[in-house]
Amino acid sequence: MVNKLSGWDDTIIALATPPGIGAIGVIRLSGLNAFNIINELFSSKDLTAQPTHTIHVGLLKNEGENIDEVVVSLFKGPRSYTGEDVIEISCHGSPYVQQQVVQACIKKGARIAKPGEFTQRAFLKGKLDLTQAEAVADLIASNTEASQKTALNNIRGGFSQVLKSLREQLIGFSALIELELDFSQEDVEFADRSKFYELIESASITTQQLLQSFQLGNVIKNGVSVAIIGKPNAGKSTLLNTLLNEDRAIVSEIAGTTRDTIEEILNIKGILFRLIDTAGIREHSTDVIELVGIEKSMEKMKAADVVLYIFDVNEMSGSELEIIKTEFKKANKKYILAANKADVMPGPSANDEFNASENIIFISAKNKEGIDEIKDALFSSTVNKQPATESVVITNARHFESLQQVMQSLQDIKAGLDHAIPGDLLALDIRRCLYYISEITGDISNEDMLEFIFSKFCIGK
Amino acid sequence: MVNKLSGWDDTIIALATPPGIGAIGVIRLSGLNAFNIINELFSSKDLTAQPTHTIHVGLLKNEGENIDEVVVSLFKGPRSYTGEDVIEISCHGSPYVQQQVVQACIKKGARIAKPGEFTQRAFLKGKLDLTQAEAVADLIASNTEASQKTALNNIRGGFSQVLKSLREQLIGFSALIELELDFSQEDVEFADRSKFYELIESASITTQQLLQSFQLGNVIKNGVSVAIIGKPNAGKSTLLNTLLNEDRAIVSEIAGTTRDTIEEILNIKGILFRLIDTAGIREHSTDVIELVGIEKSMEKMKAADVVLYIFDVNEMSGSELEIIKTEFKKANKKYILAANKADVMPGPSANDEFNASENIIFISAKNKEGIDEIKDALFSSTVNKQPATESVVITNARHFESLQQVMQSLQDIKAGLDHAIPGDLLALDIRRCLYYISEITGDISNEDMLEFIFSKFCIGK
Repeated sequence: MVNKLSGWDDTIIALATPPGIGAIGVIRLSGLNAFNIINELFSSKDLTAQPTHTIHVGLLKNEGENIDEVVVSLFKGPRSYTGEDVIEISCHGSPYVQQQVVQACIKKGARIAKPGEFTQRAFLKGKLDLTQAEAVADLIASNTEASQKTALNNIRGGFSQVLKSLREQLIGFSALIELELDFSQEDVEFADRSKFYELIESASITTQQLLQSFQLGNVIKNGVSVAIIGKPNAGKSTLLNTLLNEDRAIVSEIAGTTRDTIEEILNIKGILFRLIDTAGIREHSTDVIELVGIEKSMEKMKAADVVLYIFDVNEMSGSELEIIKTEFKKANKKYILAANKADVMPGPSANDEFNASENIIFISAKNKEGIDEIKDALFSSTVNKQPATESVVITNARHFESLQQVMQSLQDIKAGLDHAIPGDLLALDIRRCLYYISEITGDISNEDMLEFIFSKFCIGK
Repeated sequence: MVNKLSGWDDTIIALATPPGIGAIGVIRLSGLNAFNIINELFSSKDLTAQPTHTIHVGLLKNEGENIDEVVVSLFKGPRSYTGEDVIEISCHGSPYVQQQVVQACIKKGARIAKPGEFTQRAFLKGKLDLTQAEAVADLIASNTEASQKTALNNIRGGFSQVLKSLREQLIGFSALIELELDFSQEDVEFADRSKFYELIESASITTQQLLQSFQLGNVIKNGVSVAIIGKPNAGKSTLLNTLLNEDRAIVSEIAGTTRDTIEEILNIKGILFRLIDTAGIREHSTDVIELVGIEKSMEKMKAADVVLYIFDVNEMSGSELEIIKTEFKKANKKYILAANKADVMPGPSANDEFNASENIIFISAKNKEGIDEIKDALFSSTVNKQPATESVVITNARHFESLQQVMQSLQDIKAGLDHAIPGDLLALDIRRCLYYISEITGDISNEDMLEFIFSKFCIGK
């Protein structure tokens, strides 16, 4: 993959830390002239003569004018993030000072990097494959244990390894098939069909597992939206507050999370649940369906992955609940029924009526009873298994789509083997399968696709 | 100053880069255990065995769980910002990941740093004096060339040098005076009074210059507020836009500056002028004073350092202008008179009428004529001289107040010399003078004062 594209020999620069005032800000340069550019501005010593992975403190000057006292970190290619020569300048955390540093470097020949251009260079230099590069953006965007671990695992090549082994097996076999074609007159079979069948079978299982992991991956990456609905006096807001308050202390510790976001986000075992506020419900309606708040909340409910329906256990009949459940089923929604005010429940008879119904969780939002059960129910409603660090999880729709094509090709190969089709046709199917695998890793890519992928990165990465 | 306070042997940690999502975030540790703490989390190699000022890439783990792939920079004390062992961890720019890194270090014994605590440690270890430490905060807050250069000059010890030389001269003389006191029976004068007089004279001049620089320093640090006032049809908004538009391209290049701020800030030769929007004025008032918009804008005008009064030259009489000028003078305000619409001025007679009045600048806001003259007038109205890189400028009110005490002491010493007071009284005055100098540099300081100074720093510095 080295030097896949030409025209990448200029030196790029960008602020790598978030904009704004801080103790320090880090500016990153990458490219052929990174060392020369900084050397012209750095007065204390000759940086080009220093070993890689060393740190140098000194004054940065622009045409005789002092800009800042900085710390310069040297990374000589290929031992760098991009694989090129990289310099990181740690300067004082004033946006004005940072801008002066960037401008001085631009005067010496650097140009402002496009979003994701450092990672794109790392990809083009073969430091990362495309799944790893995409995982870098995922890791930066990660906000839960599950999203962090999944992204980090993929940066470290978890997904790449699976694809690589799949690819190598197919290539090995493909080579044998192609060899057969060269000796086609002699009617030999170098490639053992039964062994190949086993390989395709095992590849199909792996691919199927990857495809299945996308449901979890999607939940990990995008979270789960939950519509909490119920009559006004059902205890909806008390439940919301109880759910959120317990979590707020943990969430608010994460710097940079805005309060607006915190108030509607619940972290359950590393998965983010976005609690959607549903519209108010008229209190004295005679229409049962409207009364229970489903109609008015239908729009919000449509967008939700799960509905959490809360009702006052003392004011709900078994038959009314059946109507509500039917509505949820008609809407094809996962739902959780929370029977609130269970602490003041009028004796065992009403209790029995609801016990007969599946899926009911008895809670007291006020007394914070049954809250863990609600969380467990939310979690298990959407997460089919706890994400494990070591298992590879697909979180990217692009990967999912290509994997579906891989799966289709594998099935075509299997069908071909079943019907003992000629080697040349089999070779075509294998090549198609390899093509889709290579599309995921970026071994085959086009500029438009790369442009699209990296444009979603932040500046400086 | 080394080990000035005890109880500083714990290890502190903080995010040093601005909060939020970015390509990378840098976490800084300082203290006795910084290396040990990171070494327990860093699995790739033994960091305690590595030389200072080197960079190491590896995986950070917390109890077997991967947190992030990070770049660790090592600074062994005293060759570090704080003078202690310092580690900087460059991790992926996800607030969640950063929080995980910080939490893992806290588990191993680090504690969250207070605002400015890194710089406070640098001060206490003697790496910086107090004026340099305060300049660090100024540099981080700097948003113009002038504020950046002044702060950087003070970080590099510009002000400290002046104070140091002042202090050394006084100490040298003080020692001689004290020696005299030991031999007081013998009535000798070791300290040459006339030389001492020269010294005090020169110290007074230096101190006076520093005191005078505070006016400029204040302008550099806090900017100049300008109230633009005038009748609604005078061209106020056109002038405002013309002034701002020309500048916007430059200001908006500074990352992190919000658009709200840009719209009202004008950078003239490195000094920030904050243009204050004045209240609307009733158009058909018969009261001249109200008509010209002074009364309604008086409140805004009071807060302004300079008033920029704009009027339509074709609708203003010389006598009306005199009334307006009198109002400004009564309010004790610096003012600039901008005669707008000079491009459609009705001949030289009206022109002559205003030419006779000082301070009038003829402009055409629409045609962008006379705008540079307005800027020059704004600049010279408040900046008595262009800030020079090499000259020391006082920007800090604390320094100004202590310097006033130094000046008073110097005058007392001079008076004492004039009246040939005894050496022991002279020695008291010299000691008082030295005390105030030491208060500025922090050689004499109390915990309350330090607490106050460093509490205004940002976290991580």
